[in-house]
Amino acid sequence: MRAVRLAETSGPAALRVEQIPVPTPGEGEVLVRVRAAALNRRDLFITQGKYPNIVLPQTLGADGAGEVAAFGAGAQTELKVGDDVVIDPMIGWGDDERVWDGRTSSLLGMPSAGTFAEYACVPAANVYVKPRGLTMEEAAAIPLAGLTAYRATFVRGRLQPGETVLITGVGGGVQTFALIFAKHARARVIVTSSSDEKLEQARALGADLTLNYRTTADWHKQARAAGPIDLAIDSSGGDTVAKLLDAVRPGARIVVYGGTVGEATIRMFPLFWKHVDLLGTSMGSAQDFAEMLAIFEEGQPLKPAVDRIYPLEDVVSAVERMQEASQFGKIVLRID
Amino acid sequence: MRAVRLAETSGPAALRVEQIPVPTPGEGEVLVRVRAAALNRRDLFITQGKYPNIVLPQTLGADGAGEVAAFGAGAQTELKVGDDVVIDPMIGWGDDERVWDGRTSSLLGMPSAGTFAEYACVPAANVYVKPRGLTMEEAAAIPLAGLTAYRATFVRGRLQPGETVLITGVGGGVQTFALIFAKHARARVIVTSSSDEKLEQARALGADLTLNYRTTADWHKQARAAGPIDLAIDSSGGDTVAKLLDAVRPGARIVVYGGTVGEATIRMFPLFWKHVDLLGTSMGSAQDFAEMLAIFEEGQPLKPAVDRIYPLEDVVSAVERMQEASQFGKIVLRID
Repeated sequence: MRAVRLAETSGPAALRVEQIPVPTPGEGEVLVRVRAAALNRRDLFITQGKYPNIVLPQTLGADGAGEVAAFGAGAQTELKVGDDVVIDPMIGWGDDERVWDGRTSSLLGMPSAGTFAEYACVPAANVYVKPRGLTMEEAAAIPLAGLTAYRATFVRGRLQPGETVLITGVGGGVQTFALIFAKHARARVIVTSSSDEKLEQARALGADLTLNYRTTADWHKQARAAGPIDLAIDSSGGDTVAKLLDAVRPGARIVVYGGTVGEATIRMFPLFWKHVDLLGTSMGSAQDFAEMLAIFEEGQPLKPAVDRIYPLEDVVSAVERMQEASQFGKIVLRID
Repeated sequence: MRAVRLAETSGPAALRVEQIPVPTPGEGEVLVRVRAAALNRRDLFITQGKYPNIVLPQTLGADGAGEVAAFGAGAQTELKVGDDVVIDPMIGWGDDERVWDGRTSSLLGMPSAGTFAEYACVPAANVYVKPRGLTMEEAAAIPLAGLTAYRATFVRGRLQPGETVLITGVGGGVQTFALIFAKHARARVIVTSSSDEKLEQARALGADLTLNYRTTADWHKQARAAGPIDLAIDSSGGDTVAKLLDAVRPGARIVVYGGTVGEATIRMFPLFWKHVDLLGTSMGSAQDFAEMLAIFEEGQPLKPAVDRIYPLEDVVSAVERMQEASQFGKIVLRID
């Protein structure tokens, strides 16, 4: 089978589409014929060596959708061969809903073999029926970003209908899912970006207020002036956290799931005086994944934002597009 | 009556014991004959001009215990004249348990007249029956620090029996109440201080592990090595927050109620990767106060830690002791 393999951490150009044997599902595993996979920043970071526990050579990819091809011994599942499925990339979260178990958990695609291949082996508990209204490419776009966004927005962020949520850096996968989920939950949504084009795309998805943080230095004050902000969701860190502490209403929540800009220096005063919750999150539990997926089966046919679809062979171009951060929504690989 | 008055913000020495008229309780208020009052860092900060909305001249003091002396018109209370009472200094918290209402709330003693006087007028809702087992001096030691510690430990910190809590800077009023409450709740308690003498006093109150952060540079690593830390409570800020993020277990809570050392620079990674809750708090609601006071009525006769008792006339010495930060527990004024 064809698989996207990484043998050295010299950047996206090191990725190679190679022929390797179809894997055999181990005990309790399902073999999935992957029809579509999606990129995460994690995949880019792995090609650059910026990720813990990199084991090479390896097949990358956390997100995937396809069909059940075979079962390993003792696989506990109601699925049948040929069923359309989507994969939860979070393996072995554990019993504590508060946080994954560091002794048992890992993400598909590193250190284990991932979804950028014709076939992938995953634990049976990680294989879910694909939401009916979605194409394979759309379903593949969901897993890791949708899971992270769902937990950030609803589990950690506790977003309620009618509340206002501020999402920084829209266009990235998690941010865009957070926007879609928040509008679906009848919240008011403010988004920021450095790109007017992305802000326009966010408005098309329902964003109520859009702010270009590059051209609007006091974006956080403008956001605050537009009404009380109940929840902010951020993955940049840096000086954004201090601005969000200023922007949110007393008693608000700020959920952080990354720190791409770097360390944050914050004054304690707004944190304690306003009784703010600053909440860290990353990925999500199996319960989070199931609840998140259910949103795509509810009433209105909700769709993830798919940026571009590349054939598997063009994986280097796809990862380079992510490196440029010019995408809006998920970058998907089609695996014919 | 005698009252401790501040006319200028030039430090503790500016405090004067003066003769002023006994106040008349307004509508819905109770006049309390104050028998004992306690100091908070807030009082020191007010003498130094380091507090918002200072209105001078004024009678200082947030904490007090005494007897009901008279009622204003329409005061809604089951208390009778002569009843022993303790005062909740948080006025007008509002309906939202998450955070006080900035439009209605204030603390007794600034901008309104406080408890460092023979008599004080307070809203009837803020007057509670004094816990039976406590002296007036002990009861007066409780209000603001006990309220803040209760909310930090149980409401925001959600401390459970058997969990481990790390309290930084023991000796201060809030920290010492947090220690007492946490032991009462059958938690394991780790405390830090720069004073071996205070650490010894903390052990006498039940602290299970004590660490001198001045002589033990890696105190946070030693705390972490002693077992999983579920909750940390801090009011220093500065580099302590980063150390606490490192020290606590995944899924832990860190509650901050001050920032005496200054801004905190934190890496986002441990915050989001460990799914930590960094939670701000200050003071507490009426519900918090009632629940906190009830602890002093339960089973074992719980006592606040009283550092020293000064006659009202020695208020300058009392506030200067607080300025030196040499106290362990609350500094109390007796008002004969």
